[in-house]
Amino acid sequence: MSQITIDSFSCPLPIMDYDTIQLAHGAGGKLSAELIDKVFMPCFGNQILDKMEDQAVLERPEGRLAFTTDSFVVSPVFFPGGNIGELAVNGTVNDICMSGATPLYLSVGFILEEGLPIEELHRIVVSMKAAAEQAGVRIVTGDTKVVNKGSCDKLFINTSGVGVIPEGLEISSRRIRPGDKILLSGTIADHGMAVMTVREGLSFQSAIESDTAALNGMVAAMLETGGQIHAMRDPTRGGVATTLNEWAKTTHLGIRIQQNRLPVRDDVRGACEILGIDPLYVANEGKLLAVAAPEDAEKILLAMRQHPLGKDAVIFGEVVEDHPGKVTMMNPLGVERIIDMPVGEQLPRIC
Amino acid sequence: MSQITIDSFSCPLPIMDYDTIQLAHGAGGKLSAELIDKVFMPCFGNQILDKMEDQAVLERPEGRLAFTTDSFVVSPVFFPGGNIGELAVNGTVNDICMSGATPLYLSVGFILEEGLPIEELHRIVVSMKAAAEQAGVRIVTGDTKVVNKGSCDKLFINTSGVGVIPEGLEISSRRIRPGDKILLSGTIADHGMAVMTVREGLSFQSAIESDTAALNGMVAAMLETGGQIHAMRDPTRGGVATTLNEWAKTTHLGIRIQQNRLPVRDDVRGACEILGIDPLYVANEGKLLAVAAPEDAEKILLAMRQHPLGKDAVIFGEVVEDHPGKVTMMNPLGVERIIDMPVGEQLPRIC
Repeated sequence: MSQITIDSFSCPLPIMDYDTIQLAHGAGGKLSAELIDKVFMPCFGNQILDKMEDQAVLERPEGRLAFTTDSFVVSPVFFPGGNIGELAVNGTVNDICMSGATPLYLSVGFILEEGLPIEELHRIVVSMKAAAEQAGVRIVTGDTKVVNKGSCDKLFINTSGVGVIPEGLEISSRRIRPGDKILLSGTIADHGMAVMTVREGLSFQSAIESDTAALNGMVAAMLETGGQIHAMRDPTRGGVATTLNEWAKTTHLGIRIQQNRLPVRDDVRGACEILGIDPLYVANEGKLLAVAAPEDAEKILLAMRQHPLGKDAVIFGEVVEDHPGKVTMMNPLGVERIIDMPVGEQLPRIC
Repeated sequence: MSQITIDSFSCPLPIMDYDTIQLAHGAGGKLSAELIDKVFMPCFGNQILDKMEDQAVLERPEGRLAFTTDSFVVSPVFFPGGNIGELAVNGTVNDICMSGATPLYLSVGFILEEGLPIEELHRIVVSMKAAAEQAGVRIVTGDTKVVNKGSCDKLFINTSGVGVIPEGLEISSRRIRPGDKILLSGTIADHGMAVMTVREGLSFQSAIESDTAALNGMVAAMLETGGQIHAMRDPTRGGVATTLNEWAKTTHLGIRIQQNRLPVRDDVRGACEILGIDPLYVANEGKLLAVAAPEDAEKILLAMRQHPLGKDAVIFGEVVEDHPGKVTMMNPLGVERIIDMPVGEQLPRIC
């Protein structure tokens, strides 16, 4: 669910020479300047971006850097609970903070299709502004390209980001140990099923909404407990199953999870059953998986549950020495089965 | 002209399950892992990237940061003198070093069209490796998305980058003063006309080649002179005319250039005449414009000329108090005319 309230008065729809994107909006000339001045700067403007150089100059950071990139190609670009713009901001904020870093700066690269309504672009940009404010990050540099009609699908957005990692903190899959507990911050598969139900034209009593959200606030609360977090990742494409498999593969350890502890919303479970999709493999955009030292897991869980984005958090698995490199799930009857990496593509263009 | 020699033995074409890109190559599962393991890692691998986290962790930098982003959508993806991959590496290296920064780290985000031959992707990746080595930068984090056939045109690449700015150095259009000299590092319009002649099916005795190149080596040599460089920019989209107009507009000063000092290759001039395009507005991908203190301009010019990428460098204009906000060009007969910002799109998808 989007946590964002948008003040449309601070960024009203501008009056432009054209109502739709023209090739010349990406050519570096007068129309490019108009797009930047009327659409991007009123929303994104800040002391650094306002300098309008080809690069942002940033003060020397107070620690090691986390640097990440993500392109977003989700279709449709507007979906229940969000749109491609806030997804792009939240997604990169989350990739940064999974290292324990405080996200600070984002870049935004737009690839726009000729003919895209300016009104749609503007709505997306306004929600990016709101998402960046919510997450406490600044958009400091950007780029816009326009391709001829038919050469992309409405718009694609790349966000890259920089954050600062506090001294002495190391969160990395290399720190995972047997006995570690595995935490999950809330219900799974919400984002993927929100997009899929719209695409497939399914309707439920209440619309399934994307969980797109910036997780850095909750991560800060988890770090403040002083509990040992060994690894952390947001299970986006490929879902929880894929992240757990990557950890098992990297560490040559086993992971065992409990099916009855996995939080899945009833409507999401229903949609998954109708479409024949396992929620373990479905993308999340506002959830995290953490691997914690066993003695600290409970206090980290408590910190998560006290945060609005972690109210449904659970400890649902552990790292084991059995079946190295494999993930298994125990069902309520005590039967254990292997949860493999997905081979094919269940859900194209989910993010 | 590409400065890159590629050692194809160090990155042979891998044997893959599929010869073309499948949707599942972007889904985060087994095929994604195969693409990363067999195509990206053998070329891009380094100590930081090898950790395979969702973010790169970088040592605390020794100064302020330059941070930039650029998406590349050039069509065709292979053109005389280069391809979209080395263009993406060089373009972001250049954006960073125009601030005087030393480029250090790049991110790479691929958007691939289903059906793209792996062989083409591999050639592009190999040339990115070579371009990164040539420029002395490391690719430390990346992302790959696949969209269904028809939803993008072969591939788009976003590169973002981070560099470090030496203590005390400030290169910014705010430092431009009346009397400053304007330097250009070589012939103009090569990249744009290389792409256009292929697209239009024009042929000349010798193919016009893109000038794609990383300029950080030449910039380092310019800075070593100790001469005052006030502003610097690489005139890509919109060409030399657009960059000069941006400077004139930002500074509220005038810029006057001399037509007979502008270096243009004969074949490029010929192609421009056939297509009715003014070379002043055509993209360059391995050239820079610099604004220098008048007393230092000659020694900076000398440093440029001693570098292979600056052998045709010239001083071809100056900053004036006349006609604030405007760029003018003096022809060989002494007639002065205004060089305006371009309004429309002469050359779509040039970079």
